Amino acid sequence: MDNADLRRGKPTNHKVFGEDMAVLAGDALFALAFEHMTALSIALVVSPERKIRAVIELAKAIGTKGLVGGQVIDLCSEGLDPNDVGLEHLEFIHLHKTAALLEAVAVVGAILGGRTEEEIEKLRKYARCTGLMFQVVDDVLDVTKSTDELGTSAGKDVIAGKLTYPRLIGLERSRELAEKLSKEADEQHIGFDPNKAVPLVALASYITGRHN
Amino acid sequence: MDNADLRRGKPTNHKVFGEDMAVLAGDALFALAFEHMTALSIALVVSPERKIRAVIELAKAIGTKGLVGGQVIDLCSEGLDPNDVGLEHLEFIHLHKTAALLEAVAVVGAILGGRTEEEIEKLRKYARCTGLMFQVVDDVLDVTKSTDELGTSAGKDVIAGKLTYPRLIGLERSRELAEKLSKEADEQHIGFDPNKAVPLVALASYITGRHN
Repeated sequence: MDNADLRRGKPTNHKVFGEDMAVLAGDALFALAFEHMTALSIALVVSPERKIRAVIELAKAIGTKGLVGGQVIDLCSEGLDPNDVGLEHLEFIHLHKTAALLEAVAVVGAILGGRTEEEIEKLRKYARCTGLMFQVVDDVLDVTKSTDELGTSAGKDVIAGKLTYPRLIGLERSRELAEKLSKEADEQHIGFDPNKAVPLVALASYITGRHN
Repeated sequence: MDNADLRRGKPTNHKVFGEDMAVLAGDALFALAFEHMTALSIALVVSPERKIRAVIELAKAIGTKGLVGGQVIDLCSEGLDPNDVGLEHLEFIHLHKTAALLEAVAVVGAILGGRTEEEIEKLRKYARCTGLMFQVVDDVLDVTKSTDELGTSAGKDVIAGKLTYPRLIGLERSRELAEKLSKEADEQHIGFDPNKAVPLVALASYITGRHN
């Protein structure tokens, strides 16, 4: 999420407190998430079984089957020729690096709140589509906006030799993909109380429409 | 644990795979610990309540009340004048930075295994003493051994301006402290099956007696 922070004009923790403190803060927040989900303060309303399921969900989203796995493949993919790499490869990276944690965040709330399996899976799909869409939009902005508009270096992905959606499928198809993902995310709210779904709809719509 | 690895002649992950991959591997192992403790495979023999308690124990040991808290204070203490700092300050650092995670490791096994509160607290004390002792011995070795014997740079703590036991209470009292902690650790095994306690006794004795 460094890019998003930079765009809002706020320097990242890495810049303000140094790399060591930023990594430590991340580790502490990591632990705090698990502590918070299982803490005694929510013991009266949430069964231990549900808490356990939430812990497993979050742990998987972070580890080699989630964020870390995606990040490692992403680092190992820098400099690869886009002609040698399929769309699935790029999708694998972002489903793991970006979407997995979003999925867990959406799903953990539903698990702790005791919602049905169907509702949990809808929220999972919403988060997966939104996470993937975030990345497609990010890649598109990197090639279409100037550095001034972005607040971060435009074209930095190209310079770093990163695999991006525009490099792989072109700008037009990237925009279409973002649109498709946005629709799919929206469809997942059907059946939920529309008032309660407002923040989720707003988040997805903010990501589709953002210009920096 | 980098120092220990270097002493055995093995380069750390940071050296072999780079800082980014080493940090990612740490994050993945972090998540794996929580996943493993709560996984379905141990569902039949361990109650959800005990698993929850284990998760809270480990999460606290890692976060601001444990490892991260100790590491941050340690980083902020570099260059402080030993005359301005009490023994409690140094003990706080090592109880959090080193001992907390050892405590959790010892205690989590006892919690998942369904042992009594008394046994759990004995193991906690054993691990706390052993963790602190590890650090005292480490500090002593840094001033008494040559770089060749250590396999890592001797005197590096002094050069880095680090707070150490010898700097704070002198070499003789540091050795006495290590001896005292070793005895206290040993005493915690009373009441346990001596055969089963062998690995714990051996670990503490290895730390007290190590020369590099």
